[in-house]
Amino acid sequence: MRASPQKIQTVTSIGAGPIGGGWTAFFLSRGYRVRAYLHSMDEEPIFRAIIDTAWTSLQQIGLAAGASRDNLIITNDLEQAVTGTQFVQESAPERLEIKQPLYARLGVLVPDDIIIASSTSGLPMTNIQADCPTPGRTIVGHPFNPPYLLPLVEIVGGVATDAAALDWAFDFYLHAGKEPLRLKKEIPGFVATRLQEALWREALHMVANGEASPEDIDRALRFGPAPRMAIQGQCMAFHVACGEGGMATNLDQFGPALKLPWTRLAAPELTKSLRDAMVDGCNEMAGDRSFAEMAAERDRRIVKIIKVCDE
Amino acid sequence: MRASPQKIQTVTSIGAGPIGGGWTAFFLSRGYRVRAYLHSMDEEPIFRAIIDTAWTSLQQIGLAAGASRDNLIITNDLEQAVTGTQFVQESAPERLEIKQPLYARLGVLVPDDIIIASSTSGLPMTNIQADCPTPGRTIVGHPFNPPYLLPLVEIVGGVATDAAALDWAFDFYLHAGKEPLRLKKEIPGFVATRLQEALWREALHMVANGEASPEDIDRALRFGPAPRMAIQGQCMAFHVACGEGGMATNLDQFGPALKLPWTRLAAPELTKSLRDAMVDGCNEMAGDRSFAEMAAERDRRIVKIIKVCDE
Repeated sequence: MRASPQKIQTVTSIGAGPIGGGWTAFFLSRGYRVRAYLHSMDEEPIFRAIIDTAWTSLQQIGLAAGASRDNLIITNDLEQAVTGTQFVQESAPERLEIKQPLYARLGVLVPDDIIIASSTSGLPMTNIQADCPTPGRTIVGHPFNPPYLLPLVEIVGGVATDAAALDWAFDFYLHAGKEPLRLKKEIPGFVATRLQEALWREALHMVANGEASPEDIDRALRFGPAPRMAIQGQCMAFHVACGEGGMATNLDQFGPALKLPWTRLAAPELTKSLRDAMVDGCNEMAGDRSFAEMAAERDRRIVKIIKVCDE
Repeated sequence: MRASPQKIQTVTSIGAGPIGGGWTAFFLSRGYRVRAYLHSMDEEPIFRAIIDTAWTSLQQIGLAAGASRDNLIITNDLEQAVTGTQFVQESAPERLEIKQPLYARLGVLVPDDIIIASSTSGLPMTNIQADCPTPGRTIVGHPFNPPYLLPLVEIVGGVATDAAALDWAFDFYLHAGKEPLRLKKEIPGFVATRLQEALWREALHMVANGEASPEDIDRALRFGPAPRMAIQGQCMAFHVACGEGGMATNLDQFGPALKLPWTRLAAPELTKSLRDAMVDGCNEMAGDRSFAEMAAERDRRIVKIIKVCDE
């Protein structure tokens, strides 16, 4: 018998990177007890640093009653990490040869009524759950980085996932303060990453062709479509921009333009010179700022944008 | 002898739609005198309503000294509209068969030292200027909707454009309070629209395939990548997200994923059922809200996001 999504108190977070650390901070901020699994205890200092950085922003957004970083247990023993857990958020490295054996083990260690969610940003759950003996409760719960701030969690199952597991996860994430989006189909890249990826490939093509620098790309987005997209998405942005005619006017008027050669299609070859242009361009934009400074600046502003969009 | 970009006092705005009206409001808010050309005086009420809506937000951002809606002259006589003008911003309908004859006339009516900028979101200046007798000073100055709020102006010339005209326009827009982006090449869709278009095509594919509704698309963007994109763009978002390794780590780690089938390539067929799904989805999201309410809500929030990004 599965516990009510609203009654969950103890969760497990697997992974020491920005996603695993970010989820850990988020769950702690919402008042959960968190059992964190790291591959090696050598990762503990970096892991704790991620949580401490996140905590600054989470405090500004507002902590749940009883929320504390003291409600965290860190271990490199997977069995201990899942003892007494009521939900598992897995953020292991993005490789099937790591995730498949992990789910084979989790499928035995974790009682079958407990949901196991993967943070994977692109691997299909059908593949991840292939060697899991109890795949019905394994789902994708894909966050956006930084996962302690951006509310989106994309939810989708694999072929062996039970629909009830997806229902439960939707309610759980919503209760925890996220904005869950249940996908209609299992498609590579899900919805948000796929949209972002279309844009990203086009950006790489522009840099590869000498049409724009990374700075041009970022300025074009920041001062152009992105602020509007943060508030309205893209469908409603077009709907409202077209005035009384709305989306119908947009499609009827600009439909033919869909056939124009705007955007290229296949991914560009990631040549050394393209790689260099991207890396150099970002380093120039970063200037003297450390990664910690840039991440803190990003988070400070995202907190404000989230508040603007909530009003 | 071209006037200094910092000394311009009188500009002409051509077009009664959201872009022409938005530019007019913007220039008025920055203290310019504006001569507006409408195709028909029947358009005046709608045109004035656009300006009044924009004014609310422009006041919040802050008006320049002497800025007033009284500094506006409206006419449907093109010759009168360009009399004494020092800059022309053209936002006529997005059709070559309208723009080409217009530039043929403007090329004679407007003294040759005055810059004429087109708001076109996709037509190449090389084509627009084809019948203009004085094409050296004709450029693209492409804003983003709403042009009174979003700072981006993409600048690019056609084959017959003088480099000096582009230099002047860059300085003029910057002085006027915009964020000009000078394109390295004349490519269809420029930079920002092209990026947005890549994302938009992918969104249409998802709706066409029953993978996501328009609401799914918008929620995915608003709660996922868009707030971050508004602050960092996309290159820096990846750079900072990857921590100390930055963009190099991003490309090395996710480079192979570029070859995965994320995003489809050609534009989807705009079938009746896709059109209906898009239109119905937007109408559902809009609910009871009028277009005026939704535009005002968008503007109120964009003002705040712009302030967040400025801090």
